[in-house]
Amino acid sequence: MKLKDVGEFGLIEKISRGCLIRRGNVIKAIGDDAAAFMTDPGMVTLVTTDLLVERVHFLRNTTTGFNLGYKSLAVNLSDIAAMGGVAREAFVSIAIPDDCPIAFVEEIYDGIKTLAGRVDVNVLGGDTTGSKTDLIINVAVIGEVLKDGMLCRDGAKTGDIIACTGFLGDSRAGLHLIVNGIPADSDSLRYLLNAHILPEPHLKQGRFFSSRPGVHACIDVSDGLSCDLGHIARESKAGARLFAEKMPISRQLRSFCEEFDFDPVDYALSGGEDYTLICTLSSDGADEITGDFMKAFDCPLYLVGEITDSGEMTINGPGGEMRTIAPTGWDHFKI
Amino acid sequence: MKLKDVGEFGLIEKISRGCLIRRGNVIKAIGDDAAAFMTDPGMVTLVTTDLLVERVHFLRNTTTGFNLGYKSLAVNLSDIAAMGGVAREAFVSIAIPDDCPIAFVEEIYDGIKTLAGRVDVNVLGGDTTGSKTDLIINVAVIGEVLKDGMLCRDGAKTGDIIACTGFLGDSRAGLHLIVNGIPADSDSLRYLLNAHILPEPHLKQGRFFSSRPGVHACIDVSDGLSCDLGHIARESKAGARLFAEKMPISRQLRSFCEEFDFDPVDYALSGGEDYTLICTLSSDGADEITGDFMKAFDCPLYLVGEITDSGEMTINGPGGEMRTIAPTGWDHFKI
Repeated sequence: MKLKDVGEFGLIEKISRGCLIRRGNVIKAIGDDAAAFMTDPGMVTLVTTDLLVERVHFLRNTTTGFNLGYKSLAVNLSDIAAMGGVAREAFVSIAIPDDCPIAFVEEIYDGIKTLAGRVDVNVLGGDTTGSKTDLIINVAVIGEVLKDGMLCRDGAKTGDIIACTGFLGDSRAGLHLIVNGIPADSDSLRYLLNAHILPEPHLKQGRFFSSRPGVHACIDVSDGLSCDLGHIARESKAGARLFAEKMPISRQLRSFCEEFDFDPVDYALSGGEDYTLICTLSSDGADEITGDFMKAFDCPLYLVGEITDSGEMTINGPGGEMRTIAPTGWDHFKI
Repeated sequence: MKLKDVGEFGLIEKISRGCLIRRGNVIKAIGDDAAAFMTDPGMVTLVTTDLLVERVHFLRNTTTGFNLGYKSLAVNLSDIAAMGGVAREAFVSIAIPDDCPIAFVEEIYDGIKTLAGRVDVNVLGGDTTGSKTDLIINVAVIGEVLKDGMLCRDGAKTGDIIACTGFLGDSRAGLHLIVNGIPADSDSLRYLLNAHILPEPHLKQGRFFSSRPGVHACIDVSDGLSCDLGHIARESKAGARLFAEKMPISRQLRSFCEEFDFDPVDYALSGGEDYTLICTLSSDGADEITGDFMKAFDCPLYLVGEITDSGEMTINGPGGEMRTIAPTGWDHFKI
């Protein structure tokens, strides 16, 4: 069935089912000129938004609608996680070309609603419209955080420990498989593929950091460690020193890099879209936070380097040799 | 200069200048993972979003960047106006094709910032990315309103007077000029063109209605009177009767319709994008509200019909003859 057959309002009726996950604070969901909801007193409102464009961010013939919808919400949730916030309401704008079947659009919303349901987020509104060529999805997410618990990029201090909540580089390896048409025919390759297509936003980890005064700065890894840590360094007017042997590299990425002759440290440094969090920890509280993190998540908090006053980013190799790293990563206009 | 030359972060630096209009409640503007701001206690948060796609909503060679930016914000402000709200923060996502000069993108932001400045709205964030073919703009606006003053589509009551805050059909006439390449070579045609390209969101009128308990329902005219009034009727489980001779038709639209042989009442009924407000007024308070509206805005509040219990929409012609009107208007999948 095509969109022309159901029309804009028919589509809205189809996709708006199951969008209201949590009624508590909602006054108007989909269906009026604007959505309306209450914010808890004293909370800071957080807003983030991300625009995904066919042929730039995804290829329609290499993704399912479900995975596309899931990821378009996940990347925004990750931004709320990086601020230490609770995600509350999502808004989905979608522009649909004529040749896109309505089933694909419904799958997109299934992906969005599945993830939204898992993290207790409402889909409260958005926009549906046509497009001549490319499928376009813009998701905006509103969250909230206590003012004192908000995590920003500019809070890093010289001597802070740089920590990471999960593996780096896996997503880039998954992208390599997709772009080069390499079948994910082993558990190991399927793991890497999934890291790219169904990333897990680290919302609980962000909440954990938000409750710890020893966490000074935080960002999520969307453009790659060197790029995103570069934002923390620049905003905090600081530098950073990383240690190659401390990079959190999964065994799956190691075997992928062996097989395809890549450098896993390079993947960890400049691979984007991992959606783990990087934070900086007060050096005297790092041990306690690391221990509590392990207890809470049954997963280590990887300590990968330290904040310096040098104004540049460097990485120390296994033999102690040091090189400067330029903030590399994804630039949407330079590819 | 092209986007490739300045890069994504260079562009963000350029366009984020002058985006912070009102510092009061803002904790983080452009530059972190999410924007952060405080909401006044007891206020309802309103959110609306609109996606504009090249070749569906605009043609790049028939618009200036300024006008495109202005309108992409205006249509969202109009939604906040229709809820009776104060607009507060805007978020702009933009996907830019390679062949779009950076000057055009800066013009878009000039248009946005000019209107934002006029209505005291911050541009607090968004997203910038690439696009293969079409220029894409998604704007989301956050506003607030007192819970008791919120205006919804579902509040109309049988016997209510239907009122409109300005002329209808002018914008469609302006669109006719653009689409048919007719030069706007008189004051009258320029007026119609401007009604289409630089619509004025009726925020103050919405605030006025919000403060009046006698105003029961409200919507803005984006898809056309018959379509938008149809939303009020459907949501309120009511019908509506309009009067052809009471349609607010500008003298410029009358002379345009004479010249090009169109029916001005048809233009008023089904022309979209006027961004006036339609509201329904308690019949016993209508006189006072109309008088106060005239005093406040030096412009009449046009009383165009009444809410009925018929479940359908009709229009009475000048001789008293009645016809049923189907909710027509813009469907983005059916053109």
